[in-house]
Amino acid sequence: MAAIQKEATSADEIFKEFKEHSISEFFRKNSQMLGYAGKVRSLTTIIHEYVTNSLDACEEAGILPDISVEIKEIGENKYSIKVSDNGPGIPQSHVGKALAAVLAGTKFHRYMQQRGQQGIGAAGCTLFAKITTGKPIRVKSSTGKQAFSCDITIDIKNNKPLVTEQEKIEPTFRGLEIAGEFGEVKYENSDHGVLEYLRRTALSNPHCSIRLVEPDGKEVSFPRSVSDMPKRPKLIKPHPLGIGTNDLLEFAHRAESRKVSSFMIDAFSRVTQNKIDELRAIAKDVDFDKNPSQLTWDDAEKIVAAIKQVKWIAPDLDSMSTIGENQVSAAIKNILNPTFMSVVERKPKVFRGGIPFVVEAGIAYGGNAGKSGTQGAEGNTLRFGNKVPLLFDSSACAITEAVKNIDWKRYSIQKFEEEPVSVLVNVSSVYIPYSGVGKQAISQEEEIIDEIKLAVQDAGRNLQRYLHGMKTRSVQETRYKMIMRYVSQLAGDLSEITGDKREEIEAKLKALIEGKYKALFEAPKEQVQEE
Amino acid sequence: MAAIQKEATSADEIFKEFKEHSISEFFRKNSQMLGYAGKVRSLTTIIHEYVTNSLDACEEAGILPDISVEIKEIGENKYSIKVSDNGPGIPQSHVGKALAAVLAGTKFHRYMQQRGQQGIGAAGCTLFAKITTGKPIRVKSSTGKQAFSCDITIDIKNNKPLVTEQEKIEPTFRGLEIAGEFGEVKYENSDHGVLEYLRRTALSNPHCSIRLVEPDGKEVSFPRSVSDMPKRPKLIKPHPLGIGTNDLLEFAHRAESRKVSSFMIDAFSRVTQNKIDELRAIAKDVDFDKNPSQLTWDDAEKIVAAIKQVKWIAPDLDSMSTIGENQVSAAIKNILNPTFMSVVERKPKVFRGGIPFVVEAGIAYGGNAGKSGTQGAEGNTLRFGNKVPLLFDSSACAITEAVKNIDWKRYSIQKFEEEPVSVLVNVSSVYIPYSGVGKQAISQEEEIIDEIKLAVQDAGRNLQRYLHGMKTRSVQETRYKMIMRYVSQLAGDLSEITGDKREEIEAKLKALIEGKYKALFEAPKEQVQEE
Repeated sequence: MAAIQKEATSADEIFKEFKEHSISEFFRKNSQMLGYAGKVRSLTTIIHEYVTNSLDACEEAGILPDISVEIKEIGENKYSIKVSDNGPGIPQSHVGKALAAVLAGTKFHRYMQQRGQQGIGAAGCTLFAKITTGKPIRVKSSTGKQAFSCDITIDIKNNKPLVTEQEKIEPTFRGLEIAGEFGEVKYENSDHGVLEYLRRTALSNPHCSIRLVEPDGKEVSFPRSVSDMPKRPKLIKPHPLGIGTNDLLEFAHRAESRKVSSFMIDAFSRVTQNKIDELRAIAKDVDFDKNPSQLTWDDAEKIVAAIKQVKWIAPDLDSMSTIGENQVSAAIKNILNPTFMSVVERKPKVFRGGIPFVVEAGIAYGGNAGKSGTQGAEGNTLRFGNKVPLLFDSSACAITEAVKNIDWKRYSIQKFEEEPVSVLVNVSSVYIPYSGVGKQAISQEEEIIDEIKLAVQDAGRNLQRYLHGMKTRSVQETRYKMIMRYVSQLAGDLSEITGDKREEIEAKLKALIEGKYKALFEAPKEQVQEE
Repeated sequence: MAAIQKEATSADEIFKEFKEHSISEFFRKNSQMLGYAGKVRSLTTIIHEYVTNSLDACEEAGILPDISVEIKEIGENKYSIKVSDNGPGIPQSHVGKALAAVLAGTKFHRYMQQRGQQGIGAAGCTLFAKITTGKPIRVKSSTGKQAFSCDITIDIKNNKPLVTEQEKIEPTFRGLEIAGEFGEVKYENSDHGVLEYLRRTALSNPHCSIRLVEPDGKEVSFPRSVSDMPKRPKLIKPHPLGIGTNDLLEFAHRAESRKVSSFMIDAFSRVTQNKIDELRAIAKDVDFDKNPSQLTWDDAEKIVAAIKQVKWIAPDLDSMSTIGENQVSAAIKNILNPTFMSVVERKPKVFRGGIPFVVEAGIAYGGNAGKSGTQGAEGNTLRFGNKVPLLFDSSACAITEAVKNIDWKRYSIQKFEEEPVSVLVNVSSVYIPYSGVGKQAISQEEEIIDEIKLAVQDAGRNLQRYLHGMKTRSVQETRYKMIMRYVSQLAGDLSEITGDKREEIEAKLKALIEGKYKALFEAPKEQVQEE
């Protein structure tokens, strides 16, 4: 530690500039990290955040969602956006923070499968409205009994809501309506645009009815295709295998139980008195009878190590809410109308030791499957996380990585990029490890990638059978045509030899050959296979 | 807004669970967003954060950096890490927040080119130590006059530092030493490992001396290769073209000037009284004489629109600190020892209307260029942001995107993936728009991608000339050999006809031919070209 130059600036001088910043200031400066990068993407991000919140709210409240999105152009790269739902609404006491404080909400800390999980999205929209048009968002909410309207904007420096123009209104409706004006956005009908986002949302949420009014006034509707409510999300307790030392300590120090043992039975799933006894036998130094507030890092580390040696029943899987095989099939048929499809729902698995997740995968081939490229259809991947379409950052996503690493030749696909094939993957979990705050890509964790690969491969096996069948069929067709060419000639020759009528012989021969190749004359079977 | 099911849960019930969370809690749950994803990457992230801070601190203080990194294995996937520098140190009054409060620091709000720009990195390390080993980090700091040591950890719930064991020590050194224990990490010698990270850091920071002690005790040194200090980062004023309406308003409302006009001259670069007059002539409704605190969104919007119509001198480019052409050439030669290279530093450009940035690019061909693949060398890209190597998330990066979109055939490269070629790109700016909090990929903004493409294409033109020359040379070599084969025969025939000595004729013929092909006998020129 030497070599100081004479004119060195002192630490005190440098640290004169030391300041603390709010999370809102951070995202104001780095709004691209929230998905506000590029005008088209920014508009989709806004719709994504509001629609996701509406779907979650309806699901938690047990309401079949009716969502309406209206987009109007009001200036150069400036749009007004209105999103309304028939959900439970937001109580007046919480509306400010729910919509204008980053990292505030009901979802972040709960172990429950929901689309949102961070408490950033809606506040991010309010922030984006403020920095691009300076306008507050206008909110109407009715919980059924009470209704109000107000304007909300965000105090960026302090990450606090500013609520004004509060007014009671008649509770003639139930739900939430948010209207805002946004700059630096653009409506475009593309792969990354709002229409495609809503189309895919409808695909993965068939219980939902969505209506879009485009800037040119055209109305697009995605009607509800099933009227069963999806399972309500269920609060579950964490599985012991998913608990790290620090988690265990933090839980323990906040616990109200009197003993470590009862705290663990209470706080985690699958922990019984018997299991505590097994843990005691392994982590002999740890006093399971002391107050959980007394638990040390060392204790916790020993308990976590012991947990890994005990056999546990798998995590509670009731918490999992998937799209469902029938819905996925119906959606694929509806949108891609393929000549073949195969849909698979795997059994739930865990990652990071104890976080449960489920993968659903579908493969569609032919028809409108794939996306149109310069030289015909190209393979594409439709990604979903907790039923939310992921349109951006595909290259960074575990789903893309899994699909890329599949040896497609084994499934009779010569080049994935050059065939009319679509792969749909939905990952469901109480916690999806997104790689960025904008939640557009699932972190490439090995266990998740492996499970996605298995799911797609399962579906791929059916595809292989189908494409192999297609090939066999085409070979047989050629043979059939070749033989039929000789039938007439052969019938004549035989007629001369036997003296039988040529027409009769020809008819018999034809019947014989057609019988052998009869598979060729049947309409191809509906190829929906589910395992 | 209808269709409420009977058993709907009320908003009040749902919002009972409403909570606010600290940014530390957010990153505790989503540590993968900071780069803590995978054991090898997590270890590299820790080193990256500390080394980056050391380099910035030394640069700001005007000190040639000596950085030492020691890594020891202390358990399964557990390592102790010590990073020390000869920088200015941290004052005792700020050390807690500097190292254990997310979003606190000296860099976030300053318009100055530095490696760090967020105030997240070091606090993220402290957080990661806490959640993986429960241990505080141990700090020794000396500002030259005063020195102290202490333990620091983070109160996650409140995003506050907890500083203990504070002690005065002898100021026998100057600099900062941070030691910590980290779990869920792994030392590995790979493309994404610490050694490669430091190798590339040395490459882009030739004024720096780096020493690494690997877990097996082996010491690796990257000595300083130039002893000129890079330019000290300079605080600059924002250029008016980079100012949005919201920025202008926020600046105005915090300003101490008495008039809008004097505030603007004071706060932004290139704004003079003349320019104010031009703006007045365009934004006629705006009163430039009123107090800046009275500026409305409407005023600001009009001023921003007017700014776009006025001609401005380009942003101040003194703020830019690049690696430098000579350094890049020396580094490439040193590390890749290629048969050809070409280095280009472009003129500074602006993105988003007014944020200045500079791109440097180098292409190396042959020798150790490219990375070794299964079938020989494969093209690769070495990415840097403000001289910091970017090892992860390459597919999401503007640099990768630019290199991918170059028509390499035009530069005599048939397939970039299959030739021994390395492309080095460094983007420098007071603000680099990273796509994620982990700062491993530059957001794919069009202006940045375009400029990177131009830089690589510039360097590519020299490559094209070289590879084309190689081809010409090889054709000529074949011809030369063919002709030489006949010389002996021809000399004999001519000798018989003319009666001259065969040897003499042969020597003359050889000289004639060698003269024509003399280019073949010269050593290939050093192909370092700078434009």
